[in-house]
Amino acid sequence: MTRKQLIEQIKQKRSYLCVGLDTDITKIPRHLQAHPDAVFEFNRQIIDATKDLCVSYKLNTAFYEAMGLKGWEAMERTVNYIPQEHFIIADAKRGDIGNTSSQYARAFFETLNFDAITVAPYMGEDSVKPFLEFENKWAIVLGLTSNPGSKDFEQLKVVGQATNNSDEATNNGDEATNNGNKAGNTEAGYLYESVLEKVSAWGNPGNLMFVVGATKASDLAGIRKIIPDHFLLVPGVGFQGGSLKEVSQYGMNADCGLLVNASRAIIYASEKEDFAAEARAIAQQYQAEMAGYLH
Amino acid sequence: MTRKQLIEQIKQKRSYLCVGLDTDITKIPRHLQAHPDAVFEFNRQIIDATKDLCVSYKLNTAFYEAMGLKGWEAMERTVNYIPQEHFIIADAKRGDIGNTSSQYARAFFETLNFDAITVAPYMGEDSVKPFLEFENKWAIVLGLTSNPGSKDFEQLKVVGQATNNSDEATNNGDEATNNGNKAGNTEAGYLYESVLEKVSAWGNPGNLMFVVGATKASDLAGIRKIIPDHFLLVPGVGFQGGSLKEVSQYGMNADCGLLVNASRAIIYASEKEDFAAEARAIAQQYQAEMAGYLH
Repeated sequence: MTRKQLIEQIKQKRSYLCVGLDTDITKIPRHLQAHPDAVFEFNRQIIDATKDLCVSYKLNTAFYEAMGLKGWEAMERTVNYIPQEHFIIADAKRGDIGNTSSQYARAFFETLNFDAITVAPYMGEDSVKPFLEFENKWAIVLGLTSNPGSKDFEQLKVVGQATNNSDEATNNGDEATNNGNKAGNTEAGYLYESVLEKVSAWGNPGNLMFVVGATKASDLAGIRKIIPDHFLLVPGVGFQGGSLKEVSQYGMNADCGLLVNASRAIIYASEKEDFAAEARAIAQQYQAEMAGYLH
Repeated sequence: MTRKQLIEQIKQKRSYLCVGLDTDITKIPRHLQAHPDAVFEFNRQIIDATKDLCVSYKLNTAFYEAMGLKGWEAMERTVNYIPQEHFIIADAKRGDIGNTSSQYARAFFETLNFDAITVAPYMGEDSVKPFLEFENKWAIVLGLTSNPGSKDFEQLKVVGQATNNSDEATNNGDEATNNGNKAGNTEAGYLYESVLEKVSAWGNPGNLMFVVGATKASDLAGIRKIIPDHFLLVPGVGFQGGSLKEVSQYGMNADCGLLVNASRAIIYASEKEDFAAEARAIAQQYQAEMAGYLH
């Protein structure tokens, strides 16, 4: 999917919701547990109930791999079932030396028909670039995550790296440029800032996004100074806690530039036979709130 | 597998060789290409030809995932075929928030019967710890990799982190302690040094190893000051270029403490019907050289 097509979908649906299919066989409603293809059947009903309210689905590959062969099959069937106009993300957090990353890219972009894959940046340029070499496919690189462990390395101060330059960048990013790297000085910044800056130069806002957690909305403002134009995939947003409002306020750019993911809040909204209807009800609340934030 | 069992194997076989089964369907000998289960058949013959010369096999999961369902099946069959006395590594470089890492751990330690999995450290403690909670199973965390991209982040200088203290640590690490973290000062060190120090405190030399590339043997001496006791998984070692000698000289500790991986040099030693015999011949050269370095 192209950036233009994604933006078009967001405008049409007035939504930047991504539904996370982190489907855990032990957590799906009891009446489905005995189904011969329980995980796919659960996903199918969730997709049917939410597809007009979201622009993207994200499959957390760990949950499928934990089931072995059967899980891999359920993942494949799910990807094939999702309507083509949705942006389909493999939340796989891969990253390895060049020829191995190329194999992963083939696995998710060709063997499976995902639009995007999440990528870990630790091993650097040659581990990320192979994911950027497929037409209309995307790498979504980890920037600042929202888990407690993000303090251990992502938020270490690194020396001699260019940090964000508050004078130049704006919160809107009027036009997509080849990279968002407008910064220049050499004070100590955080490792995740260095990741955003360096990685943004390896691709462009048409093939590269970043994962940015929703813990501190104020961080988002700083992040937008470094990468004004790229889409951000934002997990961990609750629809009632006000964080969706803050994420939208600080993270949105002229093209929306956000995919906000909700997984458990939607797919496990009910443990009963009404799970799909309840999932739809929650997705509707997200969508309605999002419509209000879109220009 | 326990640390004690692994050390016992190394002593018995006079080898610390790990054979990397990075099996690429397009690179296996032509006479096998038409085999209905070509990847497993290739692996089976390589294993039969090398199992007495190596203590470990490492499967690069990307190569199997690139083949979809069929690849996953070949991986499963291969793991089940490898004799129990071998230390079996899933080179998967996983790492995600806690409940997702737990799913990956289940996938590789329970659904598949791997002894160890390689783990990316970027997301910090809660992304690594779930891999340390399985009895006699191991996490092998990325430290310093040997690819060009290791310069981008792994070799950034970080501020305010304890670095290795050259007075205290020795190259031998006489006894396995609960962590190798003997360092204390606060000068700027590299990110990978910070990773070795912090992560070593989350586990112990009985459930945690590190991936350390073999590019610069001098780096290994510094690394051994930070983590004297942990096993290191060292990829990228050529048996003729002298690097095996240097890796052994600078990286070995009293328990050996090394697993040296060779993949393509062994499994693609010949493109013809003699591929297994040729793979054995190369593995023998590694083993013979290793025997000379072991005390």
